[in-house]
Amino acid sequence: MKKEKELLSENVEEDDDIKIRISQSVIKRMALYLNALEKLQVQKGQESFFVPSTTIARLSGVKAVQVRKDFSHFGTFGRPGVGYEADNLRKQIIKILNLTQNIGIAFVGIGQLGSALVRYYYQRFSEREHGYFEPRALFDVDPEKKGTSFEGLKILPLEKMPEVIKELGIEVSVITVPSDSAQEVAELAVESGVKAILNFAPVILEVPDHIKLQSVDLSTELEHMGYYL
Amino acid sequence: MKKEKELLSENVEEDDDIKIRISQSVIKRMALYLNALEKLQVQKGQESFFVPSTTIARLSGVKAVQVRKDFSHFGTFGRPGVGYEADNLRKQIIKILNLTQNIGIAFVGIGQLGSALVRYYYQRFSEREHGYFEPRALFDVDPEKKGTSFEGLKILPLEKMPEVIKELGIEVSVITVPSDSAQEVAELAVESGVKAILNFAPVILEVPDHIKLQSVDLSTELEHMGYYL
Repeated sequence: MKKEKELLSENVEEDDDIKIRISQSVIKRMALYLNALEKLQVQKGQESFFVPSTTIARLSGVKAVQVRKDFSHFGTFGRPGVGYEADNLRKQIIKILNLTQNIGIAFVGIGQLGSALVRYYYQRFSEREHGYFEPRALFDVDPEKKGTSFEGLKILPLEKMPEVIKELGIEVSVITVPSDSAQEVAELAVESGVKAILNFAPVILEVPDHIKLQSVDLSTELEHMGYYL
Repeated sequence: MKKEKELLSENVEEDDDIKIRISQSVIKRMALYLNALEKLQVQKGQESFFVPSTTIARLSGVKAVQVRKDFSHFGTFGRPGVGYEADNLRKQIIKILNLTQNIGIAFVGIGQLGSALVRYYYQRFSEREHGYFEPRALFDVDPEKKGTSFEGLKILPLEKMPEVIKELGIEVSVITVPSDSAQEVAELAVESGVKAILNFAPVILEVPDHIKLQSVDLSTELEHMGYYL
């Protein structure tokens, strides 16, 4: 089910049973706001305090009016002149982003970029109270890497994917294989039962409609900058 | 100078002296098209052939009508039923993206993610005919890393930034330091004379208006996915 259309109504009831159709930009900003709130809580050394939309806006690089509009989609309104209660807001975003329980992730392709990303996401998972995304399995085609442990996880051959992904309830696959094998790996991940793919291979993947695909192309990010120099 | 507004005229003269105001999305897609064309050339083992907009569209994950519209902004139209001449198109995109000459980049923060990115971008630079973005300097605060060579480049202390960036004509700084020092490092990079920053630190940086800032937040990319599971 695609959730492309943004619901424009400003008064949406807060109800778990209502599946709100919200644009991807709103959802991405929710993840930014979550990070901003977590940073604030660490900085202040406390969980509960009031935070104005302007502060969330500044930390997220978003306009304050946009912050307020985004939250209003979910029926959340700040107190005028005071703002939002930080921990309530954080918990609500966690609920919106479906992060109340840890989500298992598998990494496919434990080369240079892959191993850097495993370490990066493993560290983020470990340092957080709830963790959100838990690295649960690593896969690589290289037989020399087979059985090697990495952040406490053994590198497994690709053939194990269907079995392991089902067994460990893994929902997200992070793909960091070379571009010429990325499509094949994505199909294997989908057949194995993952629901979302975060793709770092510099290629556009084709996946079924029910799969959430997000691509980070590290080269395009750099190359388009030339225009602005 | 901000280039936020998209010029909607379909008939723009192809002229180096005309600075066309084009939206960032068009520019980002140009970088995608460039990658697609380069991949096609490698696949075909030849530089010159006709490529329909539908092929560029498929490889870039963009609709064909969008591809045609994007190129038309720059006065480039494919031949009906045949498409675009690949190498001409590639060279034109290189011109549009200001990539006719190599652009020097400096990496700040040679930790886990930093060194992975140095290797990644160095490899991309080496394997291409023109290279586009040339890693020219590495910086890190860690005195133990000082003097260590990495991909043929010595890791230098931050104090050397102003001198080295000017001397080597570096225009882009890739920031991969921890979030609490990213703002400081960005300011030092700007004072040293870089014109663009690619930021991987999970924090929103504040830079002067004339600096092009692009941020890749590896955690947000993952976290917003929970919503779709």
